[in-house]
Amino acid sequence: MVLLEVSMSPLGKGESVGKYVARSLEIIDKSGVEYRLNPMGTVLEGEWDEVMAVVKQCYERMRKDCNRISCSIKIDYRKGAVGRLDSKVASVQKRLKRTLKTS
Amino acid sequence: MVLLEVSMSPLGKGESVGKYVARSLEIIDKSGVEYRLNPMGTVLEGEWDEVMAVVKQCYERMRKDCNRISCSIKIDYRKGAVGRLDSKVASVQKRLKRTLKTS
Amino acid sequence: MVLLEVSMSPLGKGESVGKYVARSLEIIDKSGVEYRLNPMGTVLEGEWDEVMAVVKQCYERMRKDCNRISCSIKIDYRKGAVGRLDSKVASVQKRLKRTLKTS
Amino acid sequence: MVLLEVSMSPLGKGESVGKYVARSLEIIDKSGVEYRLNPMGTVLEGEWDEVMAVVKQCYERMRKDCNRISCSIKIDYRKGAVGRLDSKVASVQKRLKRTLKTS
Repeated sequence: MVLLEVSMSPLGKGESVGKYVARSLEIIDKSGVEYRLNPMGTVLEGEWDEVMAVVKQCYERMRKDCNRISCSIKIDYRKGAVGRLDSKVASVQKRLKRTLKTS
Repeated sequence: MVLLEVSMSPLGKGESVGKYVARSLEIIDKSGVEYRLNPMGTVLEGEWDEVMAVVKQCYERMRKDCNRISCSIKIDYRKGAVGRLDSKVASVQKRLKRTLKTS
Repeated sequence: MVLLEVSMSPLGKGESVGKYVARSLEIIDKSGVEYRLNPMGTVLEGEWDEVMAVVKQCYERMRKDCNRISCSIKIDYRKGAVGRLDSKVASVQKRLKRTLKTS
Repeated sequence: MVLLEVSMSPLGKGESVGKYVARSLEIIDKSGVEYRLNPMGTVLEGEWDEVMAVVKQCYERMRKDCNRISCSIKIDYRKGAVGRLDSKVASVQKRLKRTLKTS
């Protein structure tokens, strides 16, 4: 399983791209893949093909009406690890013995 | 003000880098700069110098006992915008008229 | 067509990951997809599926003997644009009316 | 010393951002810091403060006439290592015993 953080936005559609980001979140939220939205991107968890298929859907949707798209993806693969959308944050809080600001 | 997402980890210290990530969160949490931790990084909000000073502190601390460090930073500057650690996520939820998974 | 920059390396395999990076370049160089290697990653040019298939091959190869992998991907899609591995750099040099340091 | 790859562009200034990227390269090229331009960013080599000062100059210049800026930075620190703008690429080519496409 991988954790994949994605952020994708169009160039040439003005300073505010919220409408396009929301469309991607619609796709992600309905995909059935586990995810967490944050102020700079969305972290998905699943097998490589599973999460990449969702990212490609977001790209294909955006491409329909955007001529230039910038996308950044960060991937953290760890053999045998699952449930890391929550456990990575929890383990940092456990080490520091306190609750941190998460959302 | 900028939003800055940072992730920083050592190479050469094994597969598990949680101890080093927790040390960075200790610095961030005590810095007084607003932040949100997520499974793939930590998003800070502040003026460029303010947030970059915290990132540099994390780097200097890690450099003391790590010979190789990989760090990725994403920055979103928007003139006159404040409180975006919460408002960016809230505005996506408002557009979709439902609560999304955030943490 | 997209430009996709990828960097992929294992955690837990020591400070030097040159052996693993070279294996990925072997895959990329033999893939037939146009690319440019730089000190921080490799930029590929092709359709989304074409370049992502090569990235996945690198991931699958690394996964065989690495339990943790960190990968970052940046994508620049521009409708109708081809040959940008060279034209993006050339256009900056043209604007500045001088040759810049490229490799 | 660190290798730092930066890419910085405005939102809200249309699909073509070449004019703004060229202005950043003007600053980088005149900074005296060693660099290599590639199709997806520019890799600088120097001490943390040195390279970050150049990145901040690019940001401050872009901020004068751009209300929204997206910037991504990747950093590779390695204790005691210098000249990696060329040696990282050279070492991959040495391992594969052939010349690769670099620019």
